[in-house]
Formats: sequence, structure tokens, C-alpha cells
Amino acid sequence: MTEPRRPDTLFWVDPSRVVGDVLTLDAGDSHHLLRVHRAERGAPFEATDGEGTLYRCRMIEASREGARGEVLERIEEAGELPGPLGLLVGLPDARAAESVVEHAVPLGASTIVFIACERSPRAPLGASRLERLRRLAIAGVKQSRRSRLPGIETAPSLGAAILQLGAGARFVADPEGVPFGGNAIRKGQLQAIAAVGPPGGFTREESAALSAAEFSPISLGNNRLTTETATIALACELRKAMIVADLREI
Amino acid sequence: MTEPRRPDTLFWVDPSRVVGDVLTLDAGDSHHLLRVHRAERGAPFEATDGEGTLYRCRMIEASREGARGEVLERIEEAGELPGPLGLLVGLPDARAAESVVEHAVPLGASTIVFIACERSPRAPLGASRLERLRRLAIAGVKQSRRSRLPGIETAPSLGAAILQLGAGARFVADPEGVPFGGNAIRKGQLQAIAAVGPPGGFTREESAALSAAEFSPISLGNNRLTTETATIALACELRKAMIVADLREI
Repeated sequence: MTEPRRPDTLFWVDPSRVVGDVLTLDAGDSHHLLRVHRAERGAPFEATDGEGTLYRCRMIEASREGARGEVLERIEEAGELPGPLGLLVGLPDARAAESVVEHAVPLGASTIVFIACERSPRAPLGASRLERLRRLAIAGVKQSRRSRLPGIETAPSLGAAILQLGAGARFVADPEGVPFGGNAIRKGQLQAIAAVGPPGGFTREESAALSAAEFSPISLGNNRLTTETATIALACELRKAMIVADLREI
Repeated sequence: MTEPRRPDTLFWVDPSRVVGDVLTLDAGDSHHLLRVHRAERGAPFEATDGEGTLYRCRMIEASREGARGEVLERIEEAGELPGPLGLLVGLPDARAAESVVEHAVPLGASTIVFIACERSPRAPLGASRLERLRRLAIAGVKQSRRSRLPGIETAPSLGAAILQLGAGARFVADPEGVPFGGNAIRKGQLQAIAAVGPPGGFTREESAALSAAEFSPISLGNNRLTTETATIALACELRKAMIVADLREI
């Protein structure tokens, strides 16, 4: 008999459903494992709890609660960047917000805060919209084989978002800035926060608030980029800088 | 009387409709200029022909053929990268192809070739699908204030696409590769070509063909990225490298 092939899919398991060395997938992921991949008892699979752990498992049984696996190995921080990467995004329209989540989650964002800026076309995200973006984030974590579910949040103003910020080098996309220098991220301090204005840009007051909060202006080149493209481009820059800094000797 | 404000919009003008120092917008863009921006005789506006020229104009009249402008100034290669950036993309599903065009055109791609690879879910793009992607490309050029319309093409196989390649340093997204070194693009040779596999990746034979054609493997980090996210990330790397190389003294 040939060794059963491990499905390429990374499954999702709610942390409350990991008990000791046994985990139980929910209905959707159980269906996927049992029906789509036709997994049988003994079949290997992998799951993440979105809290930083990737579980290598072997299927024990398909119970009424869902497919149950024995945890053979835990891998901490699998598929995560060497440090947190926060994104502050001036709230764009719904489709653009989805595009940000779809691309920035696989690229390693640890938090995405959609901010109802002065020029944003709408109020802060409501519960159902946030829920939809969080489902997209879970799909992105699974697809990109990350192990931490990024926070998808909303803030009523830029000022409110700045008050909530954690540590990390701070950058803002700004045509008047300079190209990002990769050395701005140092090995000792692998955390970064990037801000991008809403369609129409930050107001003068918002730019002043970012400047007062020590956000360095970064030019993404000589084009007018949408909020979503600029966010993805800046996330790529910071992702790359963190990966490279982490590989450096000092 | 205050100076009329120039609309922030970059209008599109078919090259055949630029005659000497007079250009005529098509029906859609005329409507936009005359009705949305309420432009009157003497109003300033800007247009591009998608062939490398941005025109600074003043409106002369709203004729039956469309809004007509006098060209005051021509700016060549406005909003363009310092050299061509070609993308070879293993054909993904329709929505993913649109996401590539939507983000990679503002980021400066000069050509995007969607290739029906061995593992692509579909045949080469048909005429109507290509037409839709080209309309998205025009929207991206206007939005990002570029002046060249990128070629949106399709190829029946990777081999066929490789045969058509122009000059330029060649890179392929490959988890087994190394992080992109910005110095791989030199000031004397500002052109680059990036290849990204379809969902499921290139086959072994396709990878060998890329290697034989001197594509260097570039790792985008420790995550499994979709075709569209990897294409955008690699385009960001090359865009940045070309901008920075062009700023260098030597």
C-alpha cells in the first residue's frame, strides 16, 4: 500500500477545538478533508489555529463533531514574517478593501486597520462587512500557509488609529517622500507599520498627525496609485525588508 | 474670474484623433470632461494617447465629434518607468487575471502575457476576454497617469511565450530561489522580465525551459502565494529596482 499523500490544503481549526493532542475540524473543513480529499483513517493532514501554531496531524476518525486528528507535531509561527507588519489603510470602497485583504494577508500583514478618514467614501466598517473581510483573511491564511490570523479592524478616524499603535518603524506612502531604503528595518527591531491614504489622499491635518507620530514619507514612484495598489506595494517593500534584515548577520 | 481648475482626471485620446495641435476626445471621455467636470471653453485638461505622450490641453469647443482641445504642451514618457517591465503570467482564472491587470498596470508593466501553461485551468484567452482586460488596462493607465498602454497578450504555451521575448534581465518566482537583489538591475540595462507560474505552478519541463532561457529563480518569501499576488509582488520588486537603479549615479 502506498503512503497516503498529504493534502496540499492547510485546514483551519478553531483553537477551542484543539484539546490536548486531538483536534476536531469544523463542518466545512471536515467536508473538504473527507469528501474532496477522500481522506481515510490514518491520512496525514495539516491545520492551523490562526494563533501561531501549525499542526501536523493524522486522521483518527470522522466523528459527528467533525474530522478528528491526532497531533503529531506542532510548528510554531509557521509561515509568519519575522515580526509584526501593521497596515493602516484609509477606507476605500468595498471591493478595494477586499483586494487589500486578499493580497496583503498572504504577504504577511499582522493587522489591517481600515480607517474612516476625512476623505473616505464611507463610515467605519460595520459588523457584517468586517465579518466578510475576516472570512477572506482566513482564506488567505490557509492559502498562503500562515499560522496567525491577522486582525482586521476598523477605526473611526486616523487620530483614533494612531492612539492604538504598537511599536515598530512607521512609514506612510507619500509621493513627496523618498524611495524606501531597505535598511530602515533593522534586525534588532523587526516590526513595521505602514499607512496609506484613502482615495483622494490624507487631508493636510491628517498628514500633519502622521508626521507628528513619526511616520516617514515613502515614495512608491512617479504614478498615482489607488489606495489598494499602494497598500500592497508598501506591504511588499516592508515584507521584503523584514525578510532580508532577518537573514543578515547582525 | 478665478483660473479654471484642471480636472485631476487624465483623459484618453485615440492617437488617430490627434491631428497637428488639435485633439478630439471620444464620446465617453467628452461626456466626462463636459458633464462631470463641467468644463467650458478655455478649460485646461490633460490627455494621453497610450503611445508615450501626455498632452496638456485647453478646451476649444464641444463639437459633434467630441470635446476638442488645443495641445499646449507634449510630455513624452510621462509616468513611465525608466525601461520596459514585461510580465509572463501562467493563466489563472478570470478574476485573478483581472486583479493582475488592475494592480500591475499602475505599477508600470509594459507587457502582460497570459500563458496557457500545462496546469492552467483554461485555454489561451479569447478575444472578448482580452478586450475586457485591455479596457481595464486603459483604466489603469488613466488612473495612474501613465502615458503608454501596456500590451495585454496571450500565448498558447510557455515555449511560445519564451520565443517572443525581448531583451532584459529575466526572473522567475520560485520558492527555491533567493530573495531578489536590487542590484540585479543595472543602470545601463533598465529592462526586466518576470515570470510567475499558474495555479499549481510550472511543471518540471516548464521550469527547465525557463532555466534554459536564463530566468533566475527569485524567492518571494516563505509563503505559498497565488499567481496574482506573486505577480504583483514580483512587479513591485522590479519596479523598485528600476526606479532606484535609474537614480544611481553610475
